Amino acid sequence: MKIASGTQFSRRQLLQWGMTATAATLIGGREFAFPPEAQAFGDPLPSWNDGPAKNAILNFIHATTDTSSPKVVPPEERIATFDQDGTLWVEHPMYSQVVYCFDRVSAVVKAKPELADVEPFRTVLTGDREAIAKLPTDELMKVLVVTLTGMSVDDFESQVKHWLGTARDPRWKRLYTELTYLPMIEVLKHMRDNGYKTYIVTGGGQDFVRVYAEQIYGIPPEQVVGTAGGTSFGYDQSGKPFLTKDPKLLLNDNNAGKPEGIHLMIGRRPWAAFGNSTGDREMLEYTTAGSGERLAILLLHDDREREYAYGPTQGLPDTKVGTFTQALYDEAKSKGWTVISMKSDWKRIFAFGS
Amino acid sequence: MKIASGTQFSRRQLLQWGMTATAATLIGGREFAFPPEAQAFGDPLPSWNDGPAKNAILNFIHATTDTSSPKVVPPEERIATFDQDGTLWVEHPMYSQVVYCFDRVSAVVKAKPELADVEPFRTVLTGDREAIAKLPTDELMKVLVVTLTGMSVDDFESQVKHWLGTARDPRWKRLYTELTYLPMIEVLKHMRDNGYKTYIVTGGGQDFVRVYAEQIYGIPPEQVVGTAGGTSFGYDQSGKPFLTKDPKLLLNDNNAGKPEGIHLMIGRRPWAAFGNSTGDREMLEYTTAGSGERLAILLLHDDREREYAYGPTQGLPDTKVGTFTQALYDEAKSKGWTVISMKSDWKRIFAFGS
Repeated sequence: MKIASGTQFSRRQLLQWGMTATAATLIGGREFAFPPEAQAFGDPLPSWNDGPAKNAILNFIHATTDTSSPKVVPPEERIATFDQDGTLWVEHPMYSQVVYCFDRVSAVVKAKPELADVEPFRTVLTGDREAIAKLPTDELMKVLVVTLTGMSVDDFESQVKHWLGTARDPRWKRLYTELTYLPMIEVLKHMRDNGYKTYIVTGGGQDFVRVYAEQIYGIPPEQVVGTAGGTSFGYDQSGKPFLTKDPKLLLNDNNAGKPEGIHLMIGRRPWAAFGNSTGDREMLEYTTAGSGERLAILLLHDDREREYAYGPTQGLPDTKVGTFTQALYDEAKSKGWTVISMKSDWKRIFAFGS
Repeated sequence: MKIASGTQFSRRQLLQWGMTATAATLIGGREFAFPPEAQAFGDPLPSWNDGPAKNAILNFIHATTDTSSPKVVPPEERIATFDQDGTLWVEHPMYSQVVYCFDRVSAVVKAKPELADVEPFRTVLTGDREAIAKLPTDELMKVLVVTLTGMSVDDFESQVKHWLGTARDPRWKRLYTELTYLPMIEVLKHMRDNGYKTYIVTGGGQDFVRVYAEQIYGIPPEQVVGTAGGTSFGYDQSGKPFLTKDPKLLLNDNNAGKPEGIHLMIGRRPWAAFGNSTGDREMLEYTTAGSGERLAILLLHDDREREYAYGPTQGLPDTKVGTFTQALYDEAKSKGWTVISMKSDWKRIFAFGS
C-alpha cells in the first residue's frame, strides 16, 4: 500500500503512542522550608495539599525568581518544560491522539472507499476493541500515517478541532480537553506569573497538541515541542502556497529525543522539568545537569478512585516505554527529584466535579 | 575521511552558505498613507528616510495593532520573521559563518594534527583566498562538518563566542556583531513595542546565530529558526548528560525550507516577513497567503558606497541561490511587496560612523 511506503515512524514511537502505562504507589521527594511570604497574596496552588511536592515547587519558584535570592535566574532564561500525556492530562487507558486516529478512520475511508476492505482499516471500522488492540505495529502505523499525514496543515487543524469539540472519553463522558489536571494548570500559571516561559515537551504529535494547547493550557503553538514530521511546501491550482504534512519523522520527542528536541526548538536548558514516565527521564537528567537551582518533578498515578493507578508496584513489566518504572523511581530518589503522589498531594484532580 | 561520511548537507545548502550574491538598483513598493498619530511620541524609525518603504512598515504596524483598526491582529498571533544574512546584517562578500568555519580550521588542525596535510585543510591553512575560493563543494563541506559538528553544544557555543569577540571584518575592521543594520534594529524594536514576537528565520546555522542573536538583535535563542542539524544525547564519564552536534541535516532553512521551518518551529503563519533574496521568496509567499493585512519586505543592496551593491541589473547571472534576481523583483512588483532601497530609504546603515 502506498501509505506505508516511505514512512519513518519508528516502532518505539508507535509503542509510545499506542501503549498504556504501568502503575505504582510510590511517593517521594525532597522537603524544603516553604517561605511564608510567598503566600502573602493567597495560595497560588489551591488544589494542592501541603507537603513536600507542593513545597518543592513553591520553593523552587521563590529561589529562582526572588531578586534577593542568590539563586535568582535572569528572566530571559526562565524556561520550564512539561510532558503532556499523563503529566498535564489523562493518558489512560489510551493516548487521546491514538483515539483520534482510530476515530478518524471512518472519514478517511469515506474519502477513499477502496480502503474499506483493506487491513487494518477493515478491523478499525468494526469498532471491535479487542481485535483493534491486537493489530500488529506496522498495521497500526498505517492508521497513524493516513490520519496524521497527507493533508494540508490547515485541513489537519480543522479535523482535530472538530474532533476535540465532539469526542468524549468513555469514563467521564467529557471532552478530552476537560481532562486536564487542575493542580498542574495552577503550576503552569504560577510559573508564568513568575516570568517562566512554559513549554510542552511531548511524545505526542506536535501539530496535534498545538491545536488546543493555547486554549486549555495557555501555551501558544510556538511553545509546543513534540514528535514532529516534516511538511512540504507547494502551491494549489490558483498558485496559493500551502504546506502538506509528510510521513517523514523529523523528531521523535521521547527519551533522548526530549533534550534533543529542547535544544532544537528552544535552544536553552530548562530550569524546571515535569514528567511522569521513562520517556521523560533524559529531559529531567538534562535539566538537572545545569548549574544553580533546578527542579525535576515526576507525577505518580496512584489514585485508582479519582483517576488511575499504574506503576511498578502493580507488578506490570518494568520495561515498557511510557511507564513509571522502578528504575526511574530509584533514580528519582537517588537524585533528589520530587515525586508527586496524585492521591496524597492533590486535593482535586479536575476542574469539573469536586 | 570519516568526517565526510554520513553528512547530509546539500550542495544547495553549501552554495547558499558560501556564495556571494548578485546586485540590483531596483526600487519598488506600494504606497500607504501614513497616519500622523503614530508619530506623536517621536519617530520610531529615525534612521529611515520618509518614503514608501518606511510608510509601508509603519502603516502595517498601525493597521494590525491599533485596537480601533478593522485589521487588528490578536496579540498572541503577532509573529514577524526576519531573514538574517543581508537583511539584518552584512552578508557580503562572504557569510560570516563561512568566515568562522575557515578561521576555525587552525584550531581543529591543532587538535587533530593529522589533518594538516589533508585537503581541504591544507589549502585553507595557507590562507590563499584564491585557492580557497576554488575548493570544490564536497571539500568545502568537510570544512563545515569539522568546524560545526562533532563537539558538544556547549563547546560550540564557547568557540563561536570567542571568535565573535575577536574576529574583524576586512572592510570596516569591526567585530561582525557590529555590522548590523541600524534601520532594521529599529524595525525589530518597534515591532516588539507593538506586541510582535520577532523571529529570525535564516539559512545560516541555527546554533551559530543563537549565540549572539539575543545580544545584538534582542531575539532570544528560542526565536531563532535556522538551518539545523541533529544532536545526540549522551553521558560523559562522570555520568553527566550532554548533547553532541551531529552532521545530520534536519532542516535546510532556505527557500521552501523557510515556511517549512516556520511551521516546525513556530506553528503559526507570520503576519510580516523580511528578506533580501530568492531564499526568502517562499517565506514571503507563505506570509502573504494569509488573510488580513500582511507585510512582505525585500531589502535591495544598492548602496555601493556605504555598503554593497548587488542585484540583477549588475548583469550577474540570475540563477544563483541567495541573490535578488530579476524574477524575484518582478514577483515583488506584481504582488505589491515592498522593496527597500538601502541607498534611498536608509539615512544611516550602521550604528557606528555617520
